[in-house]
Amino acid sequence: MKKKSRLPVEDYIDGVLKGDRMVLSRAITLVESSLPSDQMLAEKVMEGILPYSGKSIRIGITGVPGVGKSTFIENFGKILVERGHQLAVLAIDPSSQKSGGSILGDKTRMEALSSDKRAYIRPSPAGAALGGVSARTREAMLLCEAAGFDVVLIETVGVGQSETAVKGMVDFFLLLMLAGAGDELQGIKKGIIEMCDALIINKADGSNVEAAKRAKREYANALHLFPAKENGWIPQVKTCSAIEKSGLEEIWTMIDDFRDKMTKNGFLESNRQEQRVNWLQEHIRYLMESSFFHHSQVKKRMEELLPGIKSGKFSAIAKARELFDLFLKNRGND
Amino acid sequence: MKKKSRLPVEDYIDGVLKGDRMVLSRAITLVESSLPSDQMLAEKVMEGILPYSGKSIRIGITGVPGVGKSTFIENFGKILVERGHQLAVLAIDPSSQKSGGSILGDKTRMEALSSDKRAYIRPSPAGAALGGVSARTREAMLLCEAAGFDVVLIETVGVGQSETAVKGMVDFFLLLMLAGAGDELQGIKKGIIEMCDALIINKADGSNVEAAKRAKREYANALHLFPAKENGWIPQVKTCSAIEKSGLEEIWTMIDDFRDKMTKNGFLESNRQEQRVNWLQEHIRYLMESSFFHHSQVKKRMEELLPGIKSGKFSAIAKARELFDLFLKNRGND
Repeated sequence: MKKKSRLPVEDYIDGVLKGDRMVLSRAITLVESSLPSDQMLAEKVMEGILPYSGKSIRIGITGVPGVGKSTFIENFGKILVERGHQLAVLAIDPSSQKSGGSILGDKTRMEALSSDKRAYIRPSPAGAALGGVSARTREAMLLCEAAGFDVVLIETVGVGQSETAVKGMVDFFLLLMLAGAGDELQGIKKGIIEMCDALIINKADGSNVEAAKRAKREYANALHLFPAKENGWIPQVKTCSAIEKSGLEEIWTMIDDFRDKMTKNGFLESNRQEQRVNWLQEHIRYLMESSFFHHSQVKKRMEELLPGIKSGKFSAIAKARELFDLFLKNRGND
Repeated sequence: MKKKSRLPVEDYIDGVLKGDRMVLSRAITLVESSLPSDQMLAEKVMEGILPYSGKSIRIGITGVPGVGKSTFIENFGKILVERGHQLAVLAIDPSSQKSGGSILGDKTRMEALSSDKRAYIRPSPAGAALGGVSARTREAMLLCEAAGFDVVLIETVGVGQSETAVKGMVDFFLLLMLAGAGDELQGIKKGIIEMCDALIINKADGSNVEAAKRAKREYANALHLFPAKENGWIPQVKTCSAIEKSGLEEIWTMIDDFRDKMTKNGFLESNRQEQRVNWLQEHIRYLMESSFFHHSQVKKRMEELLPGIKSGKFSAIAKARELFDLFLKNRGND
């Protein structure tokens, strides 16, 4: 593995705190690295910036491919920067999923926003195999906050696992949907609807306006069937047309209102406290996996065992134990 | 933690191979235990029964609560046992999910089947916190096979993560759905539809027959939009009425046909080979997590750190490293 050139810890911290985009990007690349030496460095950078993080409103956005997330973020983001906000957009790529969508494939996405100096757009790398993607996105978010961004949007495609991860790091979770035909394949699972703070019917434009209104009523009724949230917030259902820029101001007003209420009733902070504990646990898992699966003796032995595992000759659980013992015994020698 | 009385390794192995239900149940309880001493014992039992496993057709069944899974398994299972099959039914409980469904809550489920000597029904325990639930289900499946069951049904509710786990241990994956209104909240995500080998529209009875036929056509069309599977199997869409026992024979014929084709083209075995490698990786994760989070020094230190983690005073990733180092340093002393 080729080691990339790195900055001293202080340079990362200073650069990020000054809002230097170049350093911010390099710092995110650093935290995304799976090299052990990078990880140690990243931990120091994170410790340095942590006291300066936490001052943004953290918004998660999900929805299946085709629902119009890019256009939504582009035009919603434009409203935010024009109101004087500093906006960071992070995308979680649900790697290791068969139908991952194309968050990262399309380079022309959010063209206007990405050329706007008041916004910063950062996709996560594809194919990060060993868990950790969500943990890295969390660190990218904290870095963005330390760099002065006061609104962070975290985008994910609506295919399952990544929503739980995003929900675990944001204050407000927004689900984009479409009205009308094909809803059964739109495929948003009940669990995702339950975790959202707002359900937005996008593409409420042209001949689709009536259908969107109808869908809004249906979803509003359906949401009543869910148990009340402990924070006292009743999930809102709204329509918008991201492409025609209608309904977007109202969405921001709603999020602002959410932040006010949740700050007053203490839930914003108590939710973040819980998230920090989850962050600890996730990072422990990440450390365990990355140190294990990158351990040279473990890798070598695993190669030897694989044919017998595949054929069913060896018991996977007995060999898992052998590999784990090997790892523990040689932890210092790698 | 109270240690339950255990049998010697040989007694578990002999009892399971003789098809003794009582011993089978105790063996499954053993593999589900998170006690380190039980885990060691379970590994030996698994190693002993492994050569006798693998002879069943493994079928995964999912669908959201209300779709009629219990009735389906009850009456589909009845057909199988009447054809002379030995049937084991395992349920995965998606613990740690907010909307877990009620797989385990309803004790009157599958009443007829559970009193049938040719069938064996085993739910997974609720609330197993540290991953591993799916790994334990896999071991329960292998134990059932060694006990002579030649059809294993693995049931899960359609709320996300657990489907991926089930897909990773079965030969054939079956998705139950309903026709008609409310499909948007029926909430089956695209990823689950993509991984299924058959999509069954249940409750095709009474005034619902036409809607079910229509839904069948729509889903059949929709499935054409997905890329072809590498095994050459084209996912089937069928209707049935589990309660009226119609369409169930056809489903078994289809699964039988699938097994024939996949045995001939080698995919049944190559798929299982891949699954065994995943099993190894999953079990390593399970070992790491259970040995870490049950480590007494780690637990003690974590308690001390939690207030500072919650308040944001400590960096979660720095403290994760500290805890991980503590674990590695004291691995033999717990």
